[in-house]
Amino acid sequence: MSETNELRLIPIAGLPEVRPGDDIAALLAHTGLLVDGDVVVVTQKIVSKAEGRLVELDHDDRVARTRLVESESALILRRRGDLVISQTHSGFVCANAGVDLSNVESGWAALLPVDPDRSARRIRDALLHRDGIDVGVVISDTFGRPWRKGLVDVAIGCAGVAGVLDLRGTADSLGRELAVTEVAIADEIAAAAELVMGKASGIPAAIVRGVPTDWLRPGSVRDELIRDPHDDLFR
Amino acid sequence: MSETNELRLIPIAGLPEVRPGDDIAALLAHTGLLVDGDVVVVTQKIVSKAEGRLVELDHDDRVARTRLVESESALILRRRGDLVISQTHSGFVCANAGVDLSNVESGWAALLPVDPDRSARRIRDALLHRDGIDVGVVISDTFGRPWRKGLVDVAIGCAGVAGVLDLRGTADSLGRELAVTEVAIADEIAAAAELVMGKASGIPAAIVRGVPTDWLRPGSVRDELIRDPHDDLFR
Repeated sequence: MSETNELRLIPIAGLPEVRPGDDIAALLAHTGLLVDGDVVVVTQKIVSKAEGRLVELDHDDRVARTRLVESESALILRRRGDLVISQTHSGFVCANAGVDLSNVESGWAALLPVDPDRSARRIRDALLHRDGIDVGVVISDTFGRPWRKGLVDVAIGCAGVAGVLDLRGTADSLGRELAVTEVAIADEIAAAAELVMGKASGIPAAIVRGVPTDWLRPGSVRDELIRDPHDDLFR
Repeated sequence: MSETNELRLIPIAGLPEVRPGDDIAALLAHTGLLVDGDVVVVTQKIVSKAEGRLVELDHDDRVARTRLVESESALILRRRGDLVISQTHSGFVCANAGVDLSNVESGWAALLPVDPDRSARRIRDALLHRDGIDVGVVISDTFGRPWRKGLVDVAIGCAGVAGVLDLRGTADSLGRELAVTEVAIADEIAAAAELVMGKASGIPAAIVRGVPTDWLRPGSVRDELIRDPHDDLFR
């Protein structure tokens, strides 16, 4: 059973504008805000920028945009107007293959990191081995959902924190085995962190402080959160 | 632009087991934990119990279970084995029409509240008019998602807090209009609150403290978060 103490959601304001080659772990360490046991959530956008996942794109050129989205897609699921819902090469189903034009310099687009779990591990490992700070890392992105309006932040990569918390075999409060067994903890952490980032204010990272220690294990979005297409009823 | 101060997620432990006819607002007020400006998240299960949304069901009778799920459904989208993905009469697309067997007495099932926005309004209004505490209320439930494994808590009803935060017309940090414009704030609040509830520990409510005041407006999940079927690419 997890502990259920209070959690704090702490925005990390004041990070500089991130450019290709920047060291996000160093920028985070430099804030002096992180402590052991924190989970730090970093938006895809600054990870993509730091990793140089930027391509030139005229934002008004719809044909070039569509071509870019298609090249980032392994499988197109739906199209409507300029909107494409597809499965990316790394397995995410999302709008426009994660190609992002907001908070990016005009004339450029940001692509998803090639392997967001690896991106998270790099940040975690650098913080741990260089700065001696032992934190979980979640890379978040903003996805739409079928059936529900509005967008929520989800985890696209994680390291040092569970993707899914498996409660199978745990009893409910009445002592019977739980039917609801797998909580997508990394997604809930990403959603929680978004509450203190604010899309408009450009805060690209936040801390979730106080998580139970049993959530802090290697973790992987790819292995724990991406559903096998053969096991999916809506693909 | 929203403020981006720290938020606190506070579990509300020690609530008594809820029974039909119980007054959830009174139980919440009695904890002495709520203050003006809080958003209190209450799980569907205790709302359903308080509202008497319980029906007798032999948990091992698969035919009776399926019949109950069908009667709670307006439209069946998918079936696999005992799993039914359907649209409920109130418009939610979820597994088994929200019929819930965990944390319910053996021999019984909990159904979704008939109108969860109204349930949220009743709790909010009672706290406001009887106890003078002005809070937002979110009713949460645990839903699966296509394409991603694991479950997350989402909002099925809200009152006194926005369902969606509309940032259209807001500039991004580089001064251009945001492409990502509608944040499903009530869903992110529900997901955040789940982090301190814990499925196994039976904590059925939590406080999100410190939200920006511009999030605190009437709000409705039905009006803001349920996607019109005609506008949906996956139904």
